[in-house]
Amino acid sequence: MAKPVSKDVARSDPAHVNDATLRRFAGYHMKRAFNVIQADLARTLKPFDLRMLTYTALVMIVDNPGLRQSQLADAMDIERPNLVVIIDELERRDLITRDRVPTDRRAYALHVTLAGRQLCEKAIAAVTAHENQLLEGLDKDVIQTMVAAMKHIEKRQGRG
Amino acid sequence: MAKPVSKDVARSDPAHVNDATLRRFAGYHMKRAFNVIQADLARTLKPFDLRMLTYTALVMIVDNPGLRQSQLADAMDIERPNLVVIIDELERRDLITRDRVPTDRRAYALHVTLAGRQLCEKAIAAVTAHENQLLEGLDKDVIQTMVAAMKHIEKRQGRG
Repeated sequence: MAKPVSKDVARSDPAHVNDATLRRFAGYHMKRAFNVIQADLARTLKPFDLRMLTYTALVMIVDNPGLRQSQLADAMDIERPNLVVIIDELERRDLITRDRVPTDRRAYALHVTLAGRQLCEKAIAAVTAHENQLLEGLDKDVIQTMVAAMKHIEKRQGRG
Repeated sequence: MAKPVSKDVARSDPAHVNDATLRRFAGYHMKRAFNVIQADLARTLKPFDLRMLTYTALVMIVDNPGLRQSQLADAMDIERPNLVVIIDELERRDLITRDRVPTDRRAYALHVTLAGRQLCEKAIAAVTAHENQLLEGLDKDVIQTMVAAMKHIEKRQGRG
């Protein structure tokens, strides 16, 4: 059954909806911009069979040999059970190894494999190219100002 | 059982983890800043028994009397089944009404109730105060630059 035209217009142009009140909030703009970045990142990572979280974990494990799972959960700001799913996936694909820490039987140390390092390098290159495209048209100093503002907000954790 | 000290140090200071590679991406900074804003928003909205999504929907319904559910789903960039849960909650709490559209039997028009409008006004005031606190220390023109950059990124949807 064909959809009524009026409905299609609304679907194709959500700009019809007045969101002026929400536009007063920087947080709303950030959410909308991040939605675009996240969707782009998902598309970019798909050929590597990675998602935002598996990619982030992989990059951090490459950059921090011997990283503990607990440290990674804190650094990624996610709950440990959610991290376990991510780590399981990376390990099953032989992109990382997980070894018991001799001095702490409850801790696991994470290391990247050669295959993991190679996949990670390719993924980083793809994400870099895609982010450059997304930021096209923004001056370098504008991007720097934006990033500095976001760092400032990040540091205010728990103070709002 | 006491936790090993080394583990506690790692837990309390995720800054030990090197995330320099990820810090090269504006998207990573945005994610981290947005995490802080989102957590703050959740705390701010809790006394009103609202979450980010129920709050966003309520504000949009106040600003767009007679809004269709399909338009709201598009404007909020969420799937329709997820919106139904949000609308059900707002309707059950008598904050909004959902009426059939006479000219389109499959469409529903949304309107805020008096109670919904009053709750919304209080919530907006609280969110405004909290965001001002979060952005404290940032110059007005820096915030404007950041918001303009985020609008630019938002418009690049699908071009990354």
